[in-house]
Amino acid sequence: MLKKVRILIVGFGVIGSGVARSISEKREYIKGKYGIDFELVGIGERDGSIVCEGGIDLMKSKLLNEHPHWEKGLKAIDILKEVDADIVIEATPTNIDTGEPGMSHMMAAFETKKHVVTSNKGPLTVAYTRLKKAAEENDVKFMFEASVGGAMPVLNLVRETLQANEILGIEGILNGTCNYILTRMTMEALPYEHVLSEAQELGIAESDPTYDVEGIDTACKLVILANSIFDMDIGYKDVDVAGITNITPEALKLAYDDGYVIKLVGEIQNNNKPTVAPHLVPKDHPLAVGGTLNIISIQTDLAGEITVTGKGAGAVETSSSILSDLISIAR
Amino acid sequence: MLKKVRILIVGFGVIGSGVARSISEKREYIKGKYGIDFELVGIGERDGSIVCEGGIDLMKSKLLNEHPHWEKGLKAIDILKEVDADIVIEATPTNIDTGEPGMSHMMAAFETKKHVVTSNKGPLTVAYTRLKKAAEENDVKFMFEASVGGAMPVLNLVRETLQANEILGIEGILNGTCNYILTRMTMEALPYEHVLSEAQELGIAESDPTYDVEGIDTACKLVILANSIFDMDIGYKDVDVAGITNITPEALKLAYDDGYVIKLVGEIQNNNKPTVAPHLVPKDHPLAVGGTLNIISIQTDLAGEITVTGKGAGAVETSSSILSDLISIAR
Repeated sequence: MLKKVRILIVGFGVIGSGVARSISEKREYIKGKYGIDFELVGIGERDGSIVCEGGIDLMKSKLLNEHPHWEKGLKAIDILKEVDADIVIEATPTNIDTGEPGMSHMMAAFETKKHVVTSNKGPLTVAYTRLKKAAEENDVKFMFEASVGGAMPVLNLVRETLQANEILGIEGILNGTCNYILTRMTMEALPYEHVLSEAQELGIAESDPTYDVEGIDTACKLVILANSIFDMDIGYKDVDVAGITNITPEALKLAYDDGYVIKLVGEIQNNNKPTVAPHLVPKDHPLAVGGTLNIISIQTDLAGEITVTGKGAGAVETSSSILSDLISIAR
Repeated sequence: MLKKVRILIVGFGVIGSGVARSISEKREYIKGKYGIDFELVGIGERDGSIVCEGGIDLMKSKLLNEHPHWEKGLKAIDILKEVDADIVIEATPTNIDTGEPGMSHMMAAFETKKHVVTSNKGPLTVAYTRLKKAAEENDVKFMFEASVGGAMPVLNLVRETLQANEILGIEGILNGTCNYILTRMTMEALPYEHVLSEAQELGIAESDPTYDVEGIDTACKLVILANSIFDMDIGYKDVDVAGITNITPEALKLAYDDGYVIKLVGEIQNNNKPTVAPHLVPKDHPLAVGGTLNIISIQTDLAGEITVTGKGAGAVETSSSILSDLISIAR
């Protein structure tokens, strides 16, 4: 009783190609454990696409545009509408102003009765409610565990393991780049600019780090949590945001000598405006995790506080969350 | 489309009565959110039972045996067999030698096609494989999130949020009593006996603390994790166990001055014998949580290491896990 599930991947950067690799590597495991056979039938990129109903063999070429089935100029939006598939993985770059091109991709998927799994924060930040409604109207699923906290389960954790609880509040460290920079500045007493360059060299910070260090990325993740867990209907402008660019090694040292570390914390308390801001966190507090780790504390009425930690980024790690959503839908 | 689900509770101590209260307090919330109406139709205790097909109103008496429907001498095993119910919550005291009376209760439930949700480690430690088989043969569910880590999600976390991952290893602090004793001994430089009495006065340790401090409770939880997550088929005797009774304040101080704390850690690595033993844990390691908290780190192939922390005991907290299992089954 093997159930074949046809997958389209739209956006084949670090996340998209990483998921394709994980789907291929874990194919036999997932067949054996769940009786589900994920078959990749289409890949859409900016400058062309690959469609192969019998399953795309990615070993046939090193580069996407050298693959025998590569069709230059064939648009992702067209394969979304025309190719017969069950689930679309939307992994194009995040745009938090327009949500595009992810927004149009997701709407096209819903309208042709395809489920959507995504790591793309743009459309979720710009138009969560509209997307959720479109999915419901078309009777398909819309899942996005990978959009918050990478490999760290948050949305599925709340939905599948804390379902008897009312969620009273959430606070967390949701950006690994900021956490890395603050940890290094504290431990080595180095200035912000120095550690930022180091992080850029290591690939932990992007060449334009604005989204991360100004708290924008964390704010988008709060918008997603607020809308999906707290049933709010908010956008990026509804979050109070401060970043880490003005934090000095001196401030970090003063705090440390007093028993604290400074962390960029995102916070939602029921009925309050979500905030992103540097917080003093006691060194022995669960939130005081170092390096690039992400962490989230969930306050509930029955279970009390549940805290989860994990890797917030990385292609393989993020594919854990995407595959988890794929399996949930296919089951 | 309200779905009525009839519940029997067997064993009405701290956990059983706590769950009954939570079911009652969260009844409207669960109706509204999931369309499920949990109705308590029977309670079985050692010296008698209450059965009321229309739903038991616990406000009618302070004590169970003063309730108008109390029937002295009516046995739990008989109401299990004869009362029409959907799910049995088995919450009698843990017996890790025979598994009784939980074992007989669970088998009777399965044989009369009732799902079982439990916090009772005894039957799970003694005869997990037999129970699982009986549940499967009768096409009913068998869930036991509350048996490991109280409110902290572990089994459901692995099953519902990490399902694409192979679990490579697990290590954790699974006994709040030991964690409390070691934390206090470290912080206050007090001897074991002193802190134990203090914990007993606070209700954190039992009057006979053997199961907790000798590592037996942690070992039983490892047996449950090994059998259910790693598909092993082991019992208590297959775990290497050492407790905390020989740890001195001097040893804790030496470790602390070197940057370590001592924790009672339970560990399963694929294909190895599970172990319970005091470990040196670096102070800034995620496992170094204090007080009565429980914590577990799960090593996976895709997601890397996922760590979760929560309250390992308490009637309300444990009811979070039991209600989570009830909702999963009812959905």
